[in-house]
Amino acid sequence: MGPARSLEHPTPEQMSLDSILSALADPVRRTIVAQLAGGHDDQACIAFALPVSKSTSTHHFRVLREAGIISQQYRGTSILNGLRTEELNLRFPGLLDAVLAAN
Amino acid sequence: MGPARSLEHPTPEQMSLDSILSALADPVRRTIVAQLAGGHDDQACIAFALPVSKSTSTHHFRVLREAGIISQQYRGTSILNGLRTEELNLRFPGLLDAVLAAN
Repeated sequence: MGPARSLEHPTPEQMSLDSILSALADPVRRTIVAQLAGGHDDQACIAFALPVSKSTSTHHFRVLREAGIISQQYRGTSILNGLRTEELNLRFPGLLDAVLAAN
Repeated sequence: MGPARSLEHPTPEQMSLDSILSALADPVRRTIVAQLAGGHDDQACIAFALPVSKSTSTHHFRVLREAGIISQQYRGTSILNGLRTEELNLRFPGLLDAVLAAN
Protein backbone atom coordinates (compact mmCIF):
# COMPACT_ATOMS: atom_id res chain seq x y z
CA MET A 1 0.00 0.00 0.00
CA GLY A 2 1.18 3.54 -0.77
CA PRO A 3 0.81 6.48 1.56
CA ALA A 4 -2.70 7.70 2.36
CA ARG A 5 -4.00 10.18 -0.16
CA SER A 6 -4.29 13.63 1.29
CA LEU A 7 -6.10 16.73 0.19
CA GLU A 8 -4.65 20.24 0.05
CA HIS A 9 -5.56 22.77 2.70
CA PRO A 10 -4.49 26.41 2.89
CA THR A 11 -2.48 27.46 5.93
CA PRO A 12 -4.10 30.22 8.02
CA GLU A 13 -1.76 32.73 6.33
CA GLN A 14 -2.91 31.52 2.92
CA MET A 15 -6.61 31.96 3.74
CA SER A 16 -8.12 34.94 1.92
CA LEU A 17 -11.12 36.92 3.08
CA ASP A 18 -12.41 36.96 -0.52
CA SER A 19 -12.49 33.16 -0.63
CA ILE A 20 -13.92 32.79 2.87
CA LEU A 21 -16.79 35.22 2.27
CA SER A 22 -17.46 33.87 -1.19
CA ALA A 23 -17.59 30.31 0.18
CA LEU A 24 -19.98 31.37 2.95
CA ALA A 25 -22.26 33.27 0.54
CA ASP A 26 -23.96 30.01 -0.46
CA PRO A 27 -26.81 28.59 1.64
CA VAL A 28 -25.89 24.94 1.05
CA ARG A 29 -22.33 25.61 2.18
CA ARG A 30 -23.59 27.46 5.26
CA THR A 31 -25.78 24.43 6.05
CA ILE A 32 -22.66 22.25 6.01
CA VAL A 33 -20.77 24.71 8.22
CA ALA A 34 -23.69 25.00 10.66
CA GLN A 35 -23.97 21.22 10.95
CA LEU A 36 -20.24 20.90 11.58
CA ALA A 37 -20.40 23.71 14.16
CA GLY A 38 -23.32 22.10 15.93
CA GLY A 39 -22.17 18.51 15.92
CA HIS A 40 -19.14 16.38 16.53
CA ASP A 41 -16.00 16.66 14.46
CA ASP A 42 -15.13 14.58 11.47
CA GLN A 43 -18.47 13.91 9.87
CA ALA A 44 -18.58 11.93 6.65
CA CYS A 45 -20.03 13.74 3.63
CA ILE A 46 -22.83 11.19 3.55
CA ALA A 47 -24.04 12.35 6.99
CA PHE A 48 -25.19 15.70 5.59
CA ALA A 49 -28.76 15.85 4.33
CA LEU A 50 -28.25 18.31 1.50
CA PRO A 51 -30.85 19.16 -1.15
CA VAL A 52 -28.37 18.74 -4.00
CA SER A 53 -26.84 15.97 -6.08
CA LYS A 54 -23.77 14.09 -4.89
CA SER A 55 -21.49 15.84 -7.40
CA THR A 56 -22.80 19.28 -6.42
CA SER A 57 -22.36 18.36 -2.79
CA THR A 58 -18.76 17.28 -3.46
CA HIS A 59 -18.16 20.63 -5.14
CA HIS A 60 -19.48 22.54 -2.12
CA PHE A 61 -17.26 20.59 0.29
CA ARG A 62 -14.26 21.29 -1.94
CA VAL A 63 -14.98 25.05 -2.05
CA LEU A 64 -15.15 25.08 1.76
CA ARG A 65 -11.88 23.16 2.05
CA GLU A 66 -10.03 25.31 -0.47
CA ALA A 67 -11.15 28.46 1.36
CA GLY A 68 -9.80 27.02 4.62
CA ILE A 69 -13.15 26.68 6.36
CA ILE A 70 -13.20 22.91 6.67
CA SER A 71 -10.66 20.12 6.79
CA GLN A 72 -11.17 16.96 4.76
CA GLN A 73 -9.40 13.68 5.38
CA TYR A 74 -9.70 10.32 3.70
CA ARG A 75 -10.79 7.51 6.01
CA GLY A 76 -10.97 4.38 3.88
CA THR A 77 -13.37 5.20 1.07
CA SER A 78 -15.04 8.05 2.98
CA ILE A 79 -13.98 11.65 3.44
CA LEU A 80 -14.36 13.02 6.93
CA ASN A 81 -15.03 16.73 7.36
CA GLY A 82 -14.19 19.02 10.25
CA LEU A 83 -14.62 22.74 10.86
CA ARG A 84 -11.33 24.66 11.26
CA THR A 85 -12.83 26.72 14.06
CA GLU A 86 -9.69 27.64 15.98
CA GLU A 87 -7.68 28.65 12.94
CA LEU A 88 -10.58 30.67 11.52
CA ASN A 89 -11.15 32.43 14.83
CA LEU A 90 -7.48 33.35 15.07
CA ARG A 91 -7.27 34.57 11.49
CA PHE A 92 -10.68 36.30 11.23
CA PRO A 93 -11.95 36.87 14.80
CA GLY A 94 -15.72 36.88 15.15
CA LEU A 95 -16.44 36.20 11.50
CA LEU A 96 -17.53 32.58 11.75
CA ASP A 97 -19.71 33.25 14.79
CA ALA A 98 -21.36 36.26 13.11
CA VAL A 99 -22.16 34.24 9.99
CA LEU A 100 -23.49 31.28 11.99
CA ALA A 101 -25.63 33.59 14.12
CA ALA A 102 -27.02 35.28 11.02
CA ASN A 103 -27.76 32.01 9.23
CA MET B 1 -39.00 70.14 -11.77
CA GLY B 2 -40.22 66.62 -11.07
CA PRO B 3 -39.64 64.75 -7.87
CA ALA B 4 -36.06 63.82 -7.01
CA ARG B 5 -35.00 60.54 -8.53
CA SER B 6 -34.52 57.88 -5.94
CA LEU B 7 -32.75 54.55 -5.95
CA GLU B 8 -34.14 51.28 -4.61
CA HIS B 9 -32.92 49.94 -1.30
CA PRO B 10 -33.88 46.66 0.37
CA THR B 11 -35.56 46.89 3.74
CA PRO B 12 -33.70 45.10 6.58
CA GLU B 13 -36.15 42.18 6.20
CA GLN B 14 -35.35 41.99 2.49
CA MET B 15 -31.59 41.81 3.05
CA SER B 16 -30.20 38.34 2.38
CA LEU B 17 -27.07 36.89 3.90
CA ASP B 18 -26.15 35.46 0.49
CA SER B 19 -26.14 38.92 -1.08
CA ILE B 20 -24.39 40.58 1.86
CA LEU B 21 -21.55 38.03 1.96
CA SER B 22 -21.25 37.95 -1.80
CA ALA B 23 -21.05 41.77 -1.92
CA LEU B 24 -18.38 41.80 0.79
CA ALA B 25 -16.32 39.07 -0.91
CA ASP B 26 -14.80 41.67 -3.25
CA PRO B 27 -11.77 43.72 -2.14
CA VAL B 28 -12.81 46.90 -4.00
CA ARG B 29 -16.22 46.78 -2.35
CA ARG B 30 -14.63 46.21 1.06
CA THR B 31 -12.44 49.28 0.42
CA ILE B 32 -15.59 51.33 -0.15
CA VAL B 33 -17.20 49.96 3.01
CA ALA B 34 -14.05 50.55 5.07
CA GLN B 35 -13.81 54.15 3.86
CA LEU B 36 -17.47 54.77 4.70
CA ALA B 37 -17.01 53.15 8.11
CA GLY B 38 -13.96 55.26 8.86
CA GLY B 39 -15.18 58.59 7.60
CA HIS B 40 -18.19 60.83 7.66
CA ASP B 41 -21.50 59.85 6.16
CA ASP B 42 -22.70 60.65 2.70
CA GLN B 43 -19.55 60.59 0.65
CA ALA B 44 -19.79 61.20 -3.09
CA CYS B 45 -18.60 58.34 -5.30
CA ILE B 46 -15.86 60.60 -6.63
CA ALA B 47 -14.31 60.82 -3.14
CA PHE B 48 -13.24 57.17 -3.27
CA ALA B 49 -9.80 56.48 -4.73
CA LEU B 50 -10.55 53.13 -6.35
CA PRO B 51 -8.19 51.27 -8.70
CA VAL B 52 -10.95 50.63 -11.24
CA SER B 53 -12.74 52.44 -14.07
CA LYS B 54 -15.71 54.69 -13.39
CA SER B 55 -18.19 52.15 -14.79
CA THR B 56 -16.72 49.32 -12.72
CA SER B 57 -16.83 51.58 -9.69
CA THR B 58 -20.49 52.40 -10.37
CA HIS B 59 -21.19 48.66 -10.58
CA HIS B 60 -19.54 48.02 -7.19
CA PHE B 61 -21.57 50.79 -5.51
CA ARG B 62 -24.76 49.34 -6.98
CA VAL B 63 -23.97 45.82 -5.72
CA LEU B 64 -23.42 47.24 -2.23
CA ARG B 65 -26.69 49.20 -2.38
CA GLU B 66 -28.72 46.28 -3.70
CA ALA B 67 -27.37 44.04 -0.91
CA GLY B 68 -28.42 46.64 1.66
CA ILE B 69 -24.93 47.56 2.80
CA ILE B 70 -24.92 51.17 1.63
CA SER B 71 -27.49 53.85 0.93
CA GLN B 72 -27.25 55.98 -2.18
CA GLN B 73 -29.01 59.28 -2.68
CA TYR B 74 -28.95 61.74 -5.54
CA ARG B 75 -27.69 65.21 -4.60
CA GLY B 76 -27.77 67.28 -7.75
CA THR B 77 -25.64 65.41 -10.27
CA SER B 78 -23.74 63.45 -7.61
CA ILE B 79 -24.68 60.34 -5.70
CA LEU B 80 -23.94 60.38 -1.99
CA ASN B 81 -23.17 57.11 -0.26
CA GLY B 82 -23.67 56.11 3.35
CA LEU B 83 -23.10 52.92 5.29
CA ARG B 84 -26.30 51.35 6.71
CA THR B 85 -24.48 50.48 9.92
CA GLU B 86 -27.41 50.43 12.34
CA GLU B 87 -29.68 48.37 10.14
CA LEU B 88 -26.90 45.91 9.32
CA ASN B 89 -25.98 45.54 12.98
CA LEU B 90 -29.58 44.85 13.91
CA ARG B 91 -30.11 42.36 11.11
CA PHE B 92 -26.73 40.59 11.19
CA PRO B 93 -25.10 41.39 14.55
CA GLY B 94 -21.31 41.45 14.52
CA LEU B 95 -20.96 40.67 10.83
CA LEU B 96 -19.92 44.10 9.57
CA ASP B 97 -17.44 44.59 12.42
CA ALA B 98 -15.91 41.15 11.86
CA VAL B 99 -15.45 41.80 8.15
CA LEU B 100 -14.01 45.27 8.72
CA ALA B 101 -11.63 43.92 11.35
CA ALA B 102 -10.52 41.12 9.01
CA ASN B 103 -10.01 43.43 6.03
